[in-house]
This record gives sequence, structure tokens and C-alpha cells, in this order.
Amino acid sequence: MTETTEALRLRWTRGRPGETLDVNRPLVKVIGRMIKAGERDEIRRLLRTWHPQDIVELLVQLPLKRARKLFLVLPPGPAAKVIAGLNNDFRSALLEDATIERLAEILDGRDAEDVVHVLTELPDEVQERLIPHLREADAIRELKAYQEDSAGSIMTRKLVAVPPDWSVGQVVAEVRRRADLIKKLSAVYVVDADRKLLGYLKLRDLLLRPSDIPVEQVMRTDLVSVSSEMDQEEVVRVTTENDLITVPVVDAEGRLLGRITADELQRVVRDEAEEDVRLLSGVSPDARPNDPVLGIVKNRLPWLLAGLVGALVSGSVISSYEAEIATAAILASFIPIVMSMAGNAGIQAATVAIQGLAAGTLWIGDLPWRLVKEMLAALLNGSIAALILAGIVLVVGPLVGVAEPIRLALTAGVALTIVTLLAVTMGAAVPLILNHFRIDPAMATGIFITTGNDIIAVLVFFLVASLFYL
Amino acid sequence: MTETTEALRLRWTRGRPGETLDVNRPLVKVIGRMIKAGERDEIRRLLRTWHPQDIVELLVQLPLKRARKLFLVLPPGPAAKVIAGLNNDFRSALLEDATIERLAEILDGRDAEDVVHVLTELPDEVQERLIPHLREADAIRELKAYQEDSAGSIMTRKLVAVPPDWSVGQVVAEVRRRADLIKKLSAVYVVDADRKLLGYLKLRDLLLRPSDIPVEQVMRTDLVSVSSEMDQEEVVRVTTENDLITVPVVDAEGRLLGRITADELQRVVRDEAEEDVRLLSGVSPDARPNDPVLGIVKNRLPWLLAGLVGALVSGSVISSYEAEIATAAILASFIPIVMSMAGNAGIQAATVAIQGLAAGTLWIGDLPWRLVKEMLAALLNGSIAALILAGIVLVVGPLVGVAEPIRLALTAGVALTIVTLLAVTMGAAVPLILNHFRIDPAMATGIFITTGNDIIAVLVFFLVASLFYL
Repeated sequence: MTETTEALRLRWTRGRPGETLDVNRPLVKVIGRMIKAGERDEIRRLLRTWHPQDIVELLVQLPLKRARKLFLVLPPGPAAKVIAGLNNDFRSALLEDATIERLAEILDGRDAEDVVHVLTELPDEVQERLIPHLREADAIRELKAYQEDSAGSIMTRKLVAVPPDWSVGQVVAEVRRRADLIKKLSAVYVVDADRKLLGYLKLRDLLLRPSDIPVEQVMRTDLVSVSSEMDQEEVVRVTTENDLITVPVVDAEGRLLGRITADELQRVVRDEAEEDVRLLSGVSPDARPNDPVLGIVKNRLPWLLAGLVGALVSGSVISSYEAEIATAAILASFIPIVMSMAGNAGIQAATVAIQGLAAGTLWIGDLPWRLVKEMLAALLNGSIAALILAGIVLVVGPLVGVAEPIRLALTAGVALTIVTLLAVTMGAAVPLILNHFRIDPAMATGIFITTGNDIIAVLVFFLVASLFYL
Repeated sequence: MTETTEALRLRWTRGRPGETLDVNRPLVKVIGRMIKAGERDEIRRLLRTWHPQDIVELLVQLPLKRARKLFLVLPPGPAAKVIAGLNNDFRSALLEDATIERLAEILDGRDAEDVVHVLTELPDEVQERLIPHLREADAIRELKAYQEDSAGSIMTRKLVAVPPDWSVGQVVAEVRRRADLIKKLSAVYVVDADRKLLGYLKLRDLLLRPSDIPVEQVMRTDLVSVSSEMDQEEVVRVTTENDLITVPVVDAEGRLLGRITADELQRVVRDEAEEDVRLLSGVSPDARPNDPVLGIVKNRLPWLLAGLVGALVSGSVISSYEAEIATAAILASFIPIVMSMAGNAGIQAATVAIQGLAAGTLWIGDLPWRLVKEMLAALLNGSIAALILAGIVLVVGPLVGVAEPIRLALTAGVALTIVTLLAVTMGAAVPLILNHFRIDPAMATGIFITTGNDIIAVLVFFLVASLFYL
């Protein structure tokens, strides 16, 4: 198998021990060819020594179709590790044509939490058919019962909880006993007889405290916990405010249910941010880079049609000035100018407003002044742009022989200033208003504010035009 | 002091021990009045018992002017803790009118890292005048030497590093000794004589291993470290891929310089995401919700003017069809429709592309197929919107008495489809191309893609119009 040896050579080009290997283009090409040639056993043999992270590297660099083929020939163990290492988008794409049996083979015996993470990427019917095949079925169903994006749905139930009368030594022994089961252990929780959370110990405390004193004397009581119903976005806010890298999850009675680990919190921060970006640009929050064609349509068409409706309004505003345009067709060329100015200025203001809100209660104290500042800035930006535009009209107008360049320049300038002011006011105010009514302000932005501002723009422009120019 | 007692009553309304208090509106109002009345000592006495986090809560709910006043009367200790608890935007706003002496008083003796975090929010000249007043001046200068947003600039140099021949017991003793100095300790690093990183131990290892064996026999060697020059965005990618909650920082020779803590990584994730959103909507990345009016102008005007230039191009395209518009003014009403469709569809595609890129090497393997999918979806979305638009023209057209409604419907439909297709292609392709040339694809989006698509939109529309309608 010259290709195998070739691949092996490449595999070690940078393969100093302890270092993950360099999955370079040539290597990917060779393996790609091997997959195409269907050399399952060769590939298995080649990858046996690979670190899962390297296999992930390889998968994402292969064309999706070949990546899927390769994934199907991976032994269950590595396959499971690889799945864990993939990001959601690519994972769902990769799993698309894996059979139930294959999935069961891979997922059976894994932690319920990990399984649930993978499941959420699969279509519901697949989940339903898959779960019964898994040993952890009950635990999985229980976890899936928590509402999506709730603290309960992202917590791990693997933790060390001890009664207050245990000695530090006993706790250390317990940690020892559970060590292999529990990843990312950073704190041990102290609970009473009915699992009510009393306090916690950091691992360091276990190192620092004499092993014979009872836990209740040394445990930390500056407890911050979240309820299992709390939305994950809220959870992150709590942990950030309190400067925590992990947080316990409790039920309504304050009984300890689980904990949310640092890397899970980090994932939430990233996901929520991406979701906001999608909302901002009018893509359904659950859009994925690997969506199939119809998925793309489903995730974008509604917003496009919403935009279309708004645009039809702008259009009919313009058509109501058809007569004026017929007599002064030059006016039409200002439509894109006022529209894009309104759109851009509005989105800018909206974004800053939304981020201010996301950053915490930042403005509650200071709302009126903030809005005034926005409007002052808008007035400045608007009039600067207006002066430039008016100047251009005055210079270019006569050359192209427009009627009354001065009045036209005046019209354009005044309209642009007013439009900018209104667009910014709307962009800044709408998110704050939505937030006041507990609606996610990110919903306000993108297509809706832009479309609204487009309408304002053409309306204002033609009103001003009929005032100064027509 | 009725107000103090009133405030104290409110302060305890929810003040069960161990629980942070409920900083409610009435309480904020009362304290606001006290600040206005300048009752410094009363306020000091009232706040003495407060948890810093509660003071933060209070500050963000006060009008900025009063928050500043209040901040000035806080004792240095709490003031420093409060500063640490604030988010960057609000911190910079709060510190604006604090004197050098006041800042020195607050910051002197704090960790160099914390001080640097605060400094970066201050104007350079203030920093220069402030630093000499601080004990940690040298360490601070050293940290500030690292390029902004580099691993070096976000690492802490507080860590436990031990030689390989130490016993586990010795390490535990060392951790004990340094415990108060070192926050968020999750790993101990093993280094050789010239501080080269050899391996590491998780705290749990210290608990689990017998205390008499030498570290080198139990240390973990699956080392992942980052160089001090690495960009923080890259650092996050590394830690995410390798599923780490903290990572050591090394110099070019692999010598241990510091470590980046979990909460710092989380902060980076959040900041980078916010930066992308700002880019996406045409706000300078270093814009802050609390920017002064001129700051707002500075952070937004350039993008607005860039948009204006593009809009002028669209405008001149339209004016080149002035004669046609004069004869068929109805055409003008389709300008906002094709423009907004192009803008929306383009941004959607661009956002998905950018997030796919940010999610890792996701597509490298799969680029051509992805673009084809985007274009197919665009074709679908475009034609659906086109059919709706054409339908409306056919129905409404005759009522408002447009000439040749069928040809107009045809024009509108064909144009809208082509425009959508082109806009999406551009939106999806540009980020990928930029990324290929190592330019941050987020730069591509927002105003630039929108403006480009506006031009395409009007151009295509009038070309189609002159083909089918004029």
C-alpha cells in the first residue's frame, strides 16, 4: 500500500511526540483517495495511532461526502471521541447518513450528558428510534425533559456532594473514589439530608485544610446557584457578575441537581453570541452552515418576505409620487441614498443599544441621556453626510443639467439629515422598548429596523422634496 | 438621618445572610437623593456593610453623573473590588473624572494584571501619569508591553511551577504556601531548570496521588500551550478544540510565562463575538455604549460615508436612466424592493459564511458544494419572492393603471430573481475569499456587502427593465 506508507510518512513530518500531528493538505489528499478507493482496513490501520483531535482535523478538511464515509469506518471508541470533538454544525452534517445501529454502537455506554448533546443535533424521529437502544435511556430522557437552553439542559449531574458532618479527609477519599467518573471537577458541594445545598469547597480547600476537621467548619457559604429552569443566557450573566467559572444547579426547593462546568459556560457564551448575530442579519437562530438547500430556504425565506412586505410599502409610497417623479425623474436617484443612509445609521444605533443591554443593566440609570446622545450624534453624522451630498449636487447638478440645483441640494441635504436622525432614534429606542417588555431586543434588529427605516426614508424624502423642490 | 434608616430598612428587605441584597428601585432612589445632597459620611456608613457586587448593582442603576459622585466617596478597598466587578464600558465611563491621585489610591498594591485591565480603559496620557505612582509599576509596564489582545496581554503570571524531581507532597505544600496569592488555580505546572514546560498536574492529581512519588512520574504530558504572541481569538480556538478550561503561555523557547484562566477565556469569547457584531453592523470595533457624542460620531461616520459613496454610485446608475424613468415613473417604486431584497439576502448569506468560518476549518473541504447550495437556495428564495411580487403587480397594476402590467410583472420578477442570486453569491463568496487572504471576514459584511448589493440591484433592475419593459 504505497499510499498508506506515503500517508504514514506525511503523518510524521511534524509528529514529534506529545505534539498533535500536522494534518496537511497532501496528507488529506492521500487519505481522500484511500476513502474513494474504499480501502477501509488500510484507513483503520492508518488512523489507529491518531489522536481524536487529529481525526477531527482530517474530517473537517475532507469533502463532506468523504468525511461521512470515513466516519462510518471509524471504530466506535474513537468515533465517539471524535463526535465529542466536533462543533454542532459539522456534527449534525456528519451524522446525517449514519444508521441507527451505527449511532447506537457509538453512543451506547457514553455519559448521558454527552449523548444528549449529540442527540439534540439529530432529527426528533431519529432520536426517538435511537434512545431505546442505549443503556442510559432513562437518564437521557430525564435530561431531555429539561427545556432547551435551560440550566437543567446544560448541567452535568456528575458531581461530588457530601454531608456537612464529614471530615475533609473523608471528602478527599470520596473525590479519589469518584475521580475517574468526574471530569472538570473544581468544587465539592455540601448538602443536608434532603440534598439542600449548604455550601461548597474548592479543590484547593481540600488541599489546604487539615483532614480531620468536619466540612461544615471549613465550607464556603458565599453560595451562588441557579435554578434548573433558568435560561442559559441568564446563567452566564449570573456567573459573569459573580466571577464564577462553574455554578451549581438547584431545584425550586434549593436541592442540588447538578453543576454547569466552565467549558459548558464558554460554549453558551459563544452560541448565544452567534444566535444574536443571526437574528441581527435576519437568519433564523437555528440556522447552520451545513443546512441542506431546503433548510437554508426555510431559515431565510420568512425574513426575506417580511422585508419584501416592508419594501412594498416603500414602493407604494414612491408610486404615490409617480406624477412628481415623471416631472422630476432626477428625484429617483436619491432613493438609494436616503435608504442606505437610514438603514446603516439605524443598524449602528440598534447594535450599540443591544450590546449595552446585553452587557447588563448598564443603562437603566441613564436612559434619557443616552438617547439624547444618540440623537445628537445622529444630527452631526446626518448633517455632515448632508453637506457632502448637497455639495456634490451643487457641483455635478449643473453639469448634468438638473433643474434648480440649489433647491435640489437643499432638498437632499435636509432630507438626509432628518432621515438619519429618525433612523437612529428608532434604532436606539426600539431595542430598549422591547427589552422593557422582556422581549429579546436582538429580535428588533436586522430586517425589521432596516425595513422600517427604508419606509421612513422614502416618505421623508418625498415630503421634503414636495416642500422644497416640486 | 431618616433617609439612611429608610435605606437601611430597604437594604435588609431581602437581606437574608449569605444572599446578596435586592438593590431595588426605591433603595436606588433614596441613595440617589443622598448623593445629590452630598451626604458623603452617611453614604460611607450605609455602604460599609455592602458586598462589592451589590455596590456595582447600585452604581449601574444610578444616573451616570451620580454613579461617578458615589464612586469618588467609596473607600479605596471596596472601590478597587467594585472596579474589578464592572464591565469595561461602564468602568471607563465611571473613571472618566476620577483624578490621578484617586486612581493611584485605588489601584496601588493591586495585582499587576488587574491594574492593567483597568488601565486599558483609560486614555494613554492618564495611564502614563498614573503608572509611576504605583508600586507594581515595572510589572505593569512589562505586561503592557505585550501586544493588545495577545495571549501575553491576557495571561496571569501568578501560577505554581515546580521542578520535576519534587515529590507530590512538596507540590501540595507549595500550593498551600501560595494559596492566598493565587486565584482560580486549576493546574500546577512542571518546568525544568530554565523554566521550559515539561508537564502539568491537575489539582485533583495532587489529591489522588501518593504524596511521596516524584512529580515527573505522575505529571500529565499531553501539553497544549500557546505562545505569548498568539492572538486571543486564536487562543480561544485552541482551548476550545482541545477542550481546555485554562492554558499555559510560553515564549518562543517554550519557557513558561503565565497561564490564561477560564474566566479570562470566557471574557475573550464574549468580547470577540461583540466585536464581530459591531463590524457586521458597521460600527468601529472599539465602540462602547458609553461613548461620548463625538466618540459615537468618530466610531460610525466613516462607515456611513463609505455607505454614502456606494449609494451615490447606485444613485448615478439610476440617474443614467433618468429619461426612461421620466417616461415610466412607476419603475422608481421598484427601486426599494430590489434594493432591500439584495441587502437582506446578501447579509444572510454572509453571516452564515462568516459563522461557518469562525466555527473552525468547517468548510475548507467543501467549498464548491457549499456555494452551489447557497446559489440553489437563493434561486428558490428569489423566485418565490419574484412570483409574489409579479402576482401583486398583475393584480394591483391595472387598478392603478400602469402601462402593460404583464411586461412590468415580468420585469419585476426576473430582476428580483437575478438580484437575489447575485446578492447571495456575493454575500457567501466575499467572506470566503477574504478569509483565504487572511483578512477578517467580518470586515466584509454589513455596510460593504449591502452597498455593493445595492449597486448590483439597481443596475440589474434597470437593465432588465430596458430589456422587457421600456
